[in-house]
Amino acid sequence: MNKTRILVTNDDGIYAPGIKALWSAMSELGDVTVVAPNREQSAVGHAITISDPLRVDEINRSNGFKGFSVDGTPSDCVKIATQALLSDKPDIIVSGINHGSNTGLNIIYSGTVSAATEGTMLNIPSVAISLNSFDESDFDGAKAAAKAVVAHVLEKGLPEKTLLNVNVPAIPEDEIKGFKITQQGNAAFKDRFEKREDPRGKVYYWMTGHMIDPDTETHMDHYAVLDGYISITPIHYRLTNHEFLDELSSWNFL
Amino acid sequence: MNKTRILVTNDDGIYAPGIKALWSAMSELGDVTVVAPNREQSAVGHAITISDPLRVDEINRSNGFKGFSVDGTPSDCVKIATQALLSDKPDIIVSGINHGSNTGLNIIYSGTVSAATEGTMLNIPSVAISLNSFDESDFDGAKAAAKAVVAHVLEKGLPEKTLLNVNVPAIPEDEIKGFKITQQGNAAFKDRFEKREDPRGKVYYWMTGHMIDPDTETHMDHYAVLDGYISITPIHYRLTNHEFLDELSSWNFL
Repeated sequence: MNKTRILVTNDDGIYAPGIKALWSAMSELGDVTVVAPNREQSAVGHAITISDPLRVDEINRSNGFKGFSVDGTPSDCVKIATQALLSDKPDIIVSGINHGSNTGLNIIYSGTVSAATEGTMLNIPSVAISLNSFDESDFDGAKAAAKAVVAHVLEKGLPEKTLLNVNVPAIPEDEIKGFKITQQGNAAFKDRFEKREDPRGKVYYWMTGHMIDPDTETHMDHYAVLDGYISITPIHYRLTNHEFLDELSSWNFL
Repeated sequence: MNKTRILVTNDDGIYAPGIKALWSAMSELGDVTVVAPNREQSAVGHAITISDPLRVDEINRSNGFKGFSVDGTPSDCVKIATQALLSDKPDIIVSGINHGSNTGLNIIYSGTVSAATEGTMLNIPSVAISLNSFDESDFDGAKAAAKAVVAHVLEKGLPEKTLLNVNVPAIPEDEIKGFKITQQGNAAFKDRFEKREDPRGKVYYWMTGHMIDPDTETHMDHYAVLDGYISITPIHYRLTNHEFLDELSSWNFL
């Protein structure tokens, strides 16, 4: 029997600690190939590179971690891995472990989630996994979560056009309360622009802000993570608002 | 009574012919402010700029067209316009007129649609409008479509978390068959990577490909456009696959 083929990518870049942790966890489940951006690509959303060529380099880090770096986005990595670099289609694509959660409305900006979405669009079961911390973190809980979720997906598959978005609380593994199946909640960044002047008197702006979470129940993704659960949300990319089709059809456009 | 405030943006950049056509059409409906990327930002998806400052410049083009250019993405433009540049919240945001359709699975890569999504997230009714042509085009049909759709939205509003994605066929205005309310279809790019060597023998890749549309009915967005209709799709960004929640809850993760 052939070993399970696992493609690992991320949006923090191939030199991030999170992808090395994910590579290590996935290596216990199968043959891992890493194809990831050559630098941080956070908040790139579902961007792809169409006006520039893509370059690919072989990278070796310590402890046997190796992979391909791509000067593109997470979606680019999944496309070029499956369509140019790998000789066989992977059995699963796992994106992460992201520094910082990808929950609520913010998942629309997430390169981590978009890589898994890209995999799903290519009919490959895909999982995104993020840790709710921006510190140089303890990845043990997230590694265990990734292994559990990926093992289940490999066994049971996923429905068409559906991926799993996993978010792990940044607490010691033995304090995690367990898994919670959740919905995409309403947590979002409340943005603010800070106006400054450069040394030559020219104005520029920094976007800043803070997270607001109006949700108060553990079946919502961000709230579940804050409450100590590993959140698993089934995400799709069917964007039609079917409930509004009838009313919109009654608008008299002509 | 105050005049209607219309914010116009795009992803082809402030120097694109499409945004000037949209500005001209919208000027017949209200006071228009243009805030758009300072260069082409196609296929950036829902990217935002978080690690760099944003610069804003005032731009004057011919025939009275003026606006603010931003060295960021379409989403950045909507954020900075509504939260830093404009003194009053716009009544509507209109993104386009994009060169090339944004239909089917490809809308996930669309900066044009993401700008309208960003507006919707800020609780401002928003419309994306694209023309199915990459040529220096005749925008008359698209201008008329934009005016009709925007006038209806200003009158009737849109449901929560819902925007309209409008795609116009690139045919003379009098040959357009009318409006069709559609669903996001399954049209998608079939990608291919072309492997080349640079003059120093180093490998690089170009992503190329062609559009595949498995749909055969005019209630699907891309097919409707090819059939000569202006396609209007109500799009939302609620990404939970609710149908899969029960089955996923039965997976025994612990």
